[in-house]
Amino acid sequence: MKATILTIGDEILIGQIIDTNAAWMSQKLTALGISVVERVTVSDEHKPIVDAIRYCLGQSDIVLMTGGLGPTKDDITKVAIADYLGVGMEFHEEVFENIKKIFIPRNIPLSDAHKDQCYLPEKVEVLKNSMGTAPGMLWQHEGKQIVSMPGVPYEMKAIMSEQLLPRLAQRPDRKVILHKTIMTAGMGESSIADEIEDIVDGFDKELSIAYLPGLAQVRLRITAKGDDESLLQSKLDQAITRVSERISDLVYGYDEISLQEALQQICIDRGLTVGTAESCTGGYLSHLMTSISGSSAYYQGSAITYSNALKQKMLGVKEDTLKAYGAVSEQVVKEMVEGAIQLLGVDFAVATSGVAGPTGGTEAKPVGTVCIAVGSHGVIETRTILASKDRSKNIAYASNQALNMLRKCVLQAKIS
Amino acid sequence: MKATILTIGDEILIGQIIDTNAAWMSQKLTALGISVVERVTVSDEHKPIVDAIRYCLGQSDIVLMTGGLGPTKDDITKVAIADYLGVGMEFHEEVFENIKKIFIPRNIPLSDAHKDQCYLPEKVEVLKNSMGTAPGMLWQHEGKQIVSMPGVPYEMKAIMSEQLLPRLAQRPDRKVILHKTIMTAGMGESSIADEIEDIVDGFDKELSIAYLPGLAQVRLRITAKGDDESLLQSKLDQAITRVSERISDLVYGYDEISLQEALQQICIDRGLTVGTAESCTGGYLSHLMTSISGSSAYYQGSAITYSNALKQKMLGVKEDTLKAYGAVSEQVVKEMVEGAIQLLGVDFAVATSGVAGPTGGTEAKPVGTVCIAVGSHGVIETRTILASKDRSKNIAYASNQALNMLRKCVLQAKIS
Repeated sequence: MKATILTIGDEILIGQIIDTNAAWMSQKLTALGISVVERVTVSDEHKPIVDAIRYCLGQSDIVLMTGGLGPTKDDITKVAIADYLGVGMEFHEEVFENIKKIFIPRNIPLSDAHKDQCYLPEKVEVLKNSMGTAPGMLWQHEGKQIVSMPGVPYEMKAIMSEQLLPRLAQRPDRKVILHKTIMTAGMGESSIADEIEDIVDGFDKELSIAYLPGLAQVRLRITAKGDDESLLQSKLDQAITRVSERISDLVYGYDEISLQEALQQICIDRGLTVGTAESCTGGYLSHLMTSISGSSAYYQGSAITYSNALKQKMLGVKEDTLKAYGAVSEQVVKEMVEGAIQLLGVDFAVATSGVAGPTGGTEAKPVGTVCIAVGSHGVIETRTILASKDRSKNIAYASNQALNMLRKCVLQAKIS
Repeated sequence: MKATILTIGDEILIGQIIDTNAAWMSQKLTALGISVVERVTVSDEHKPIVDAIRYCLGQSDIVLMTGGLGPTKDDITKVAIADYLGVGMEFHEEVFENIKKIFIPRNIPLSDAHKDQCYLPEKVEVLKNSMGTAPGMLWQHEGKQIVSMPGVPYEMKAIMSEQLLPRLAQRPDRKVILHKTIMTAGMGESSIADEIEDIVDGFDKELSIAYLPGLAQVRLRITAKGDDESLLQSKLDQAITRVSERISDLVYGYDEISLQEALQQICIDRGLTVGTAESCTGGYLSHLMTSISGSSAYYQGSAITYSNALKQKMLGVKEDTLKAYGAVSEQVVKEMVEGAIQLLGVDFAVATSGVAGPTGGTEAKPVGTVCIAVGSHGVIETRTILASKDRSKNIAYASNQALNMLRKCVLQAKIS
């Protein structure tokens, strides 16, 4: 099955925002064995949208459209689809009910624009939007399919995950495609490839591997493609086991689990509590942990000490240490961990201090230098890393490194 | 003049990398008054590339292609272009000279693949690549233009900046397109549309508006399109002024400034310091502030008190208050702000406590309920919002609401 992705939006065409929706959609479709053969982005205008629908359907079996469905006046996708299909518009009560359910509890008055949202091109199958007011829509047309979804990322993702992907997974012509992803942290893509080269070279022809690098992490996605599901499953399982055993020190989980989820599971299993003391990561490390539902079972709290004064006041970092080594030093992050364990009353703490950039670097401590400490009472491990020149990348990279150090530290604690 | 951007690359189609080239190109072309009317991405295969060239030229006066030109690639792009144009290939000595200049000083031996790079479709105008070996190429064809460039971002940017954009800037028929974006927070898209309906209905035909919603924010992009730059600029300025005056309470800046940048500017201008006391936002609010370079000039630090014990210990929230009203209450966030001002020694603090979800909701306080308080010594304002069912959305929505409340609070402080 071939798919095209058609994005509607001037803001993407003029370069104001980068289209991250399409990448997410491509990954999900690819995982179902659907080839994304083309992507098109057009402006919020009638004729280009109609032309693009025609072109995309010429290249594929299904076109997935996003954008141009909001309640305001730049909404013309629906009219273009109706004209392409040669149908009129009809009012959908269930869409209006969904809008009422969202707005009435919030005491937001319903406007005419909201009613307009409920008129959809005829012959539509409504794909419920659990995250917003604009519904997803699906049409069957001359043996092909047209899908339209709002461009707001979490709304599109909800409609895809809950409504569309389950439908697409059931199509009859489907080849069997199985994926499993090994999640690793602590080594780069090329070094991992060298490490497992002989295993990958020996893969059966049904198997392939993709290296998907992230910040301080690499995902290894192994794919099995063929006809016999149980044979493929056993080949995939074998490959996963062999690769995982070879690089066991790096593997923290499977199938899109995050480092913070892995950490949370370990801590909850062992009844351990955790907190952070952050300078350069500025709360991002704490945010990663608390982004997971259920984190309150192990994560207690944090001291974000951006200023040196607060490092001293909240965490008891010594003025002498700050003077002698500077705020970005292994000595200071070690004292931050000690202070955090005391202040937060936790079993384990992790601390960061660094030069996030883009300014503030020196020859001895260039932009991207980050000191990290993790530990419990008495046993504290420290490390200095050099990330990049980019502020947001440095914050994310240092946070992931810190999470991985903390995860390993908590794991070892059990063995000892 | 209308342009299309045609990107060649499987790695983009399967979602492995996000296409940032196209956004950069769009910005540069838009700034020259060239409308980017469409973007297409196709795989590294002959027929889809030829189809896409034909389609793109049907929609525009110039198609800018990137990708599929490196020495390790199949050079499928060049063959597809030659076939589309109906021409053969010819060897270009000046391209070979450029390759020699790059490789000989580095003692890299020249391979056949390098010589292959010098065969280009006939009738080409070579656009020199100062950053690499694969040249940019330009063809005039039936009154339209085809451009092909390598996909490596810094090579594409060098060819565009040094060769292509100067040529395009000199075209005689140049249309002018101006954009300006009003950044708002505090009201939904539909309500804003109602509020300014009469102004937008009265727009001259050169003007148009797009509503771009985000979490607790809406961007209003106004576009002016025509021939006379100074006339357009004055019409755009007038429209921006009229809209901004009507919704002055919501406007926090222009042209992609973020709420945290606006807050940072105000605080630095007025010499004020800020900190946060976070429960449900778990450090994300602090992260947003520290994601901006220079934030240490006003942001001091935070207490992330996820557990009730830490709300009491770090921020002095009273046990009686927690018992009487619960952690998610305006009373508790008020005490959190008071404690944070004391603990962090800041002029202003902001506090959050809520039910981020997906679990933990009750009938009285469903998932998405967030209490926010902002203030300085003595004057504290509180508010309760109801976000959504989605954890990450709730965290981001509450953080943006909190930033906006803090921004307004800091602004008012000056007036009083």
